[in-house]
Amino acid sequence: MEHSTEILLHLFIVFVAVQVGAEVAQRLRMPSVVGEIAAGCVVGSSVLGWIEISAPLEVLAEIGAVLLLFSVGLETRIGELKRVGGVATMVGIAGVLLPFILGAAWALMSGFDTPKAMFVAAAFVATSAGITARVLQEMGALSRTESRVILGAAVIDDILAMLLLGVVTALQTQGGVDVVNLLLVLLQAVAFVAIIGLVGARVMRGSSMMLEAPINPHSPLTISLALCLGLAAAAAYLGLAAIIGAFLAGMAAAETQQRHTLEKQLQPITALIVPFFFVVTGAKIDLGQLASFSVVVSLIVVTLLAAAGKLLGCGLGAWSLGRRGALIVGTGMIPRGEVGIIVASLGQQMNVFGDRIYALIVAMSLLTSVIAPPALARLLAEPDRRSSNNADAGTGS
Amino acid sequence: MEHSTEILLHLFIVFVAVQVGAEVAQRLRMPSVVGEIAAGCVVGSSVLGWIEISAPLEVLAEIGAVLLLFSVGLETRIGELKRVGGVATMVGIAGVLLPFILGAAWALMSGFDTPKAMFVAAAFVATSAGITARVLQEMGALSRTESRVILGAAVIDDILAMLLLGVVTALQTQGGVDVVNLLLVLLQAVAFVAIIGLVGARVMRGSSMMLEAPINPHSPLTISLALCLGLAAAAAYLGLAAIIGAFLAGMAAAETQQRHTLEKQLQPITALIVPFFFVVTGAKIDLGQLASFSVVVSLIVVTLLAAAGKLLGCGLGAWSLGRRGALIVGTGMIPRGEVGIIVASLGQQMNVFGDRIYALIVAMSLLTSVIAPPALARLLAEPDRRSSNNADAGTGS
Repeated sequence: MEHSTEILLHLFIVFVAVQVGAEVAQRLRMPSVVGEIAAGCVVGSSVLGWIEISAPLEVLAEIGAVLLLFSVGLETRIGELKRVGGVATMVGIAGVLLPFILGAAWALMSGFDTPKAMFVAAAFVATSAGITARVLQEMGALSRTESRVILGAAVIDDILAMLLLGVVTALQTQGGVDVVNLLLVLLQAVAFVAIIGLVGARVMRGSSMMLEAPINPHSPLTISLALCLGLAAAAAYLGLAAIIGAFLAGMAAAETQQRHTLEKQLQPITALIVPFFFVVTGAKIDLGQLASFSVVVSLIVVTLLAAAGKLLGCGLGAWSLGRRGALIVGTGMIPRGEVGIIVASLGQQMNVFGDRIYALIVAMSLLTSVIAPPALARLLAEPDRRSSNNADAGTGS
Repeated sequence: MEHSTEILLHLFIVFVAVQVGAEVAQRLRMPSVVGEIAAGCVVGSSVLGWIEISAPLEVLAEIGAVLLLFSVGLETRIGELKRVGGVATMVGIAGVLLPFILGAAWALMSGFDTPKAMFVAAAFVATSAGITARVLQEMGALSRTESRVILGAAVIDDILAMLLLGVVTALQTQGGVDVVNLLLVLLQAVAFVAIIGLVGARVMRGSSMMLEAPINPHSPLTISLALCLGLAAAAAYLGLAAIIGAFLAGMAAAETQQRHTLEKQLQPITALIVPFFFVVTGAKIDLGQLASFSVVVSLIVVTLLAAAGKLLGCGLGAWSLGRRGALIVGTGMIPRGEVGIIVASLGQQMNVFGDRIYALIVAMSLLTSVIAPPALARLLAEPDRRSSNNADAGTGS
């Protein structure tokens, strides 16, 4: 009885904090996600200590991230994503290479041996699509070319990051890399994405009737949510991020006739559950770890390197979109979020590095997640400078 | 990573099982809740063993029950509930007394000493409003007089059951009852229900504007959900069932101008989360415990006593509604659900009784929850016999 009271109280605190945080952020003309992460930080252990991250809260956060990417997928048409496939691939590859090189250079200079430096560098790589997706959704920018490039690149980024993690993990434990196994892993991941992305969409296009077959009046929604949970679990089983599966499920559901009903019905659900993802992200920030001057300096260096790696790498990959488009894509790929935290936890468990580096990587992952949204929102809100430049040029001539 | 994969897989299994169960039940013309509980039983440890009840699943189930009663409260007007206050009070009191007497008689005859028999009897008392509420909602019967009596009586029932549990617990541990403390507990509970039920509704009636104040377009929903979680936590803190708080929050929200929007937005949320409550209820049924003949006989006796206690007690209380109305109210109060399970767990922890009685009470609680819904659905679906009898009499004369 008392345990359940405590859980309800925590849910209440989290839910109220997140609404207040979002409201304050929006009044300050910032994306609500910044306020939600900040709210988590405030009610979390390092400031007020009103909540602690329990397994149920973690699962709610996970469901929140899954539902968020499902709703983003629902606003993404596979045809439009394919149109930016080339650019997205270049963004994904360059956005993995450059942060990896910068991360490895920093780790080598910090005194790690080569295998360990490779592992640290892997934590610099993976982008967390959730935070950027939310900003894009909130700004009504999901139909922009840059948004499609970011979402496509996030899928490729995740596949590459998973492979990379496989390689660097193998380097630690066996001293050698099992190429055949890695190729198998790669093949599985690519096959999963290709089959769901291409065949799944086609199947869903023809099965709108089937969604209405059950007696349950909400059956299009419940069947789609089942698909979402199933593909999220399948993606996680293959070593990909669960949210990639949820995103693909959303894209498949977007091909059905019921997509607009689904979008509408999903809104109250995401309003309830998605904030848990951001508040838990915020509650994981341990401000106490950052109390010393040298740590703060290291953190700034690491965060700048991590941000610069994505900004330059992804920006170069998206150069064909113009300077501002490249800047939007690069900024959108900066947040590391929970993916960086997962790699850091793995490294700590495997004794690749100690508590200090762990705290640094976690703080970097969260810091990149906090600095990117306001920058991205500003870039998206600005009137397109290229076109206004053109207009100026027109007036001037 | 692997842990999170497993959780996602469990969520997927639970979600698919519950949809299939509900669909099968509805095709067999049974309330979907029966199919959902059965689905939980099938995927649970005693049949397929595909899922186990983890803390996150328990919390999802709890949130499901809370949201269910919130949505039921949203369809209940405080004015209409007050109109049946007298009948509901009689139903609540008689529905506590008779099951308690029958339970105590059975326990005394089974060889328990008086204090322990009182505790066993307490497990016969509390009604779980969630299961009945769902059936009433599904049959579109929430506006019937019988439904209002059931909901009002469930609140009174819960207050009395909590007091009774306080008394019997005190009997075990101290050998004496602290009357002053119990009166304080009673006062707190009654004050909570009265304040929220009366003042809360009035406050909400005047604050429809406030719900629209935040920037968030879903603010009427998010503020109402915050109220729901807050009052659920408060009710649990006072020793009442959390769902009583959620029900009161729903009734308060029903007084706002946005009630129809809230109802509509809540539907997809409850479609996603409420089934977890029923599937977890079903997954707790341990069929292995019921494998011996003597246990089955005891279980049948206990379940019949528990059902008869409510049917007669509540039926007598609701006699003014006519024979069929009394039957509906009595049947609706039969399910013990999670409340009986909570009392049983407490008794086991306090060594009042052993594993066999624990299993019996749990099985009785679940069995009453499974047998009541189809009976209730049949009673609700039947054309009113009183009026058809009158018509027959008219033809005969």
